[in-house]
Amino acid sequence: MNYSSKLIEEAVQALATLPGIGKKTALRLALHLVKMDPEWTERLGTALLDMRRNIQFCQDCHHLSDGPLCQICADARRDHSLICVVEGIRDVMAIEETGQYRGLYHVLGGVISPLDGIGPEALHLDSLYQRVAQGEVSEIIMAISPTIEGETTIFYLSRQLQSHPVKISVIARGVSFGGELEYADELTLGRSIAARAPYKAEGA
Amino acid sequence: MNYSSKLIEEAVQALATLPGIGKKTALRLALHLVKMDPEWTERLGTALLDMRRNIQFCQDCHHLSDGPLCQICADARRDHSLICVVEGIRDVMAIEETGQYRGLYHVLGGVISPLDGIGPEALHLDSLYQRVAQGEVSEIIMAISPTIEGETTIFYLSRQLQSHPVKISVIARGVSFGGELEYADELTLGRSIAARAPYKAEGA
Repeated sequence: MNYSSKLIEEAVQALATLPGIGKKTALRLALHLVKMDPEWTERLGTALLDMRRNIQFCQDCHHLSDGPLCQICADARRDHSLICVVEGIRDVMAIEETGQYRGLYHVLGGVISPLDGIGPEALHLDSLYQRVAQGEVSEIIMAISPTIEGETTIFYLSRQLQSHPVKISVIARGVSFGGELEYADELTLGRSIAARAPYKAEGA
Repeated sequence: MNYSSKLIEEAVQALATLPGIGKKTALRLALHLVKMDPEWTERLGTALLDMRRNIQFCQDCHHLSDGPLCQICADARRDHSLICVVEGIRDVMAIEETGQYRGLYHVLGGVISPLDGIGPEALHLDSLYQRVAQGEVSEIIMAISPTIEGETTIFYLSRQLQSHPVKISVIARGVSFGGELEYADELTLGRSIAARAPYKAEGA
């Protein structure tokens, strides 16, 4: 494509390196910014640069943070005896969105996947062991995707932590609320039946 | 959404002002940048800021430009007696992509659309009249979408220019090459038959 402008060309090429954004979309975005007030581009450009230059990872849980400790770890009102172990940052955000959890997190930064060359040493495990060793933690909740790699990671972690007096639990798996049984996959449906629970009426 | 970081939140909100990018996509893009080397974000942020701060519009044809004159108008090898009148910047890029045109352009910045409150005074017309009045131009090619507003604009412009000794032409309209006749709309098909041309064998 001939952009007739090196400035536009460089902006389009930089935008097109983003995932899911091709050359055509990048051009549309660049021309949108040219059409809008310059303040929009100033805000976007400085927000991106500010973010990348100043973003940190929480020294306790490895979640995104504006300082050494993230807002969640720094919040004294949260239950510091509960740690929810997740694969990534977006899992923290998804669980926070539910408003159902008031403990802390620990972001592993991935799951054990020998096929991809990811062993336990590539994950944030030492800092988790340290947090557990400090003795304040009573329960570790594994909120990791029920895939082969996820199950492997949960198994490995539970073995590593078995010498500590800490309860290890796994988030409930089964058919989705609102989901139709006939569309649930066989494995989920089969395990849902095997792991059936006594019925309790709501509010009873 | 609780981002646990003002830096991420500001970046996501700025990205989500772009057309076609929602909060979820914006978050995905922001986390992608956090994961990549800082140089990627530096390149993107500075490319956007550079573009917006320094981009100009060609003083002759109103196309995007890095200086007072765009690359096309400044190119002495192009035919300065031909001006192709288009609605917007993307039309110039599309025509340049074809490699079939070696004249100059004139970007109107829109079409006359009374319903949207866009009259002739909102378009870059005076500069077009000036270019024609300088006498170097022999033909004006109207490459404007065949919509009601486009046709109105072509009609208005042809009336304004009729006192000048300049040929006015319109790009060919008809069924698309490679298109199937049965899927062409009635108007296009009807006009294609009315505007039929003598058959010339290729290379004859």
